[in-house]
Amino acid sequence: MSETAQKLLQESVGSTVLVKLRGGKELRGTLKSFDQHLNIVIKDAEEVSAEGSRKLGTVVIRGENVLLISPASG
Amino acid sequence: MSETAQKLLQESVGSTVLVKLRGGKELRGTLKSFDQHLNIVIKDAEEVSAEGSRKLGTVVIRGENVLLISPASG
Amino acid sequence: MSETAQKLLQESVGSTVLVKLRGGKELRGTLKSFDQHLNIVIKDAEEVSAEGSRKLGTVVIRGENVLLISPASG
Amino acid sequence: MSETAQKLLQESVGSTVLVKLRGGKELRGTLKSFDQHLNIVIKDAEEVSAEGSRKLGTVVIRGENVLLISPASG
Amino acid sequence: MSETAQKLLQESVGSTVLVKLRGGKELRGTLKSFDQHLNIVIKDAEEVSAEGSRKLGTVVIRGENVLLISPASG
Amino acid sequence: MSETAQKLLQESVGSTVLVKLRGGKELRGTLKSFDQHLNIVIKDAEEVSAEGSRKLGTVVIRGENVLLISPASG
Amino acid sequence: MSETAQKLLQESVGSTVLVKLRGGKELRGTLKSFDQHLNIVIKDAEEVSAEGSRKLGTVVIRGENVLLISPASG
Repeated sequence: MSETAQKLLQESVGSTVLVKLRGGKELRGTLKSFDQHLNIVIKDAEEVSAEGSRKLGTVVIRGENVLLISPASG
Repeated sequence: MSETAQKLLQESVGSTVLVKLRGGKELRGTLKSFDQHLNIVIKDAEEVSAEGSRKLGTVVIRGENVLLISPASG
Repeated sequence: MSETAQKLLQESVGSTVLVKLRGGKELRGTLKSFDQHLNIVIKDAEEVSAEGSRKLGTVVIRGENVLLISPASG
Repeated sequence: MSETAQKLLQESVGSTVLVKLRGGKELRGTLKSFDQHLNIVIKDAEEVSAEGSRKLGTVVIRGENVLLISPASG
Repeated sequence: MSETAQKLLQESVGSTVLVKLRGGKELRGTLKSFDQHLNIVIKDAEEVSAEGSRKLGTVVIRGENVLLISPASG
Repeated sequence: MSETAQKLLQESVGSTVLVKLRGGKELRGTLKSFDQHLNIVIKDAEEVSAEGSRKLGTVVIRGENVLLISPASG
Repeated sequence: MSETAQKLLQESVGSTVLVKLRGGKELRGTLKSFDQHLNIVIKDAEEVSAEGSRKLGTVVIRGENVLLISPASG
């Protein structure tokens, strides 16, 4: 990760982020932590899809399947 | 894995977790163990799908195919 | 693999296991051996699908394509 | 990355780029940073699809899923 | 590969094997050689599909795309 | 890359090449540079599809997603 | 690659080979060179599909996407 990416994610800890995964899944929640492989932990996560949203609580997401992360304040 | 992710999973050993796999499969069961690659062992696992659920017993899941893990208490 | 996973598989050698592969294939048979990459050998294997089952005999399965392994006694 | 690729991206920082991802997603925005794995940060990003565009703000994109990057001035 | 897998394949050299590849392709032929990545050479290979079979002669198969190998005598 | 591949690509710098990507995308343009992972830079690139072509200008293509490269003079 | 595979490909340099790629593409042409990752160069290549064939000239094929190579004389 570039320093810019790392700084952006660091500043987003505690804030809402949108995470898109390979295969089309999309989650929204509060970023709790991340590492350099983009493994991330999200609190109060909701899976968002065309059919509505579904509450998942806290989730550990495997970095390898992350397409992109977007801070809500970005 | 970040320390937060590791701690979260460590606290979930013995509790119910939801595991989503690449390709759309979804399992629910009691987390028995995990390693840093997200290889996990789940007890009393059920595969959950739109067509209902199917009991699988204990399963060893290959970490590479894990999309996310969500502790039921998360 | 965690020690729990290794022990579980070790105890399943000689017993029936269910193996799910990426792409949807599912096999059932007697576990003969495995290694830490989840490369496995199964005896008296049957490929199980919605259209019925097909006997394959002994098979060597490449670990990279394994989604999960479930001991029948699990 | 070849020096040519690195130089091209370096010159595009601050300018609009088009990014195509595996699975068909396409984003347009201002390149903020990149590293040698093509992990990139884009500002004022929009996801562009046949159904129209959707504003995403700042996004961190995982290099592994990048198909190509095209500077708008290219 | 476990020793069991290696021994099984070693004993199958010169005999007919069934090879399943990612993406659904299936080949049958005489195993000529293999290495620890499951790269294999098959003689008198036939590609078998729902539409019938097609003779391919000798083929070199990339191990990474192998799902499983089954000795006909297994 | 074999020396033959490297030499062929080296001789194609400045000439038109056809690049096929995983997932079916196809681009045509002037090869500007490449490295040993087949990361490539193409000038005056056009994406060619059944629905016609679309000008992309200069593009940086991630080698991992390249299926093949064909020099127009090949 | 096993020695058998290497020898087989070495003997096929200058002869016609059939190459099958992940995703279903199929090419036929004269093998010019290969390396241990199955990166290959083919001369007078034709892409063969259900809709007919298309001349591509010389092509550099990325080994990672190769399913199998079959010498025409195999």
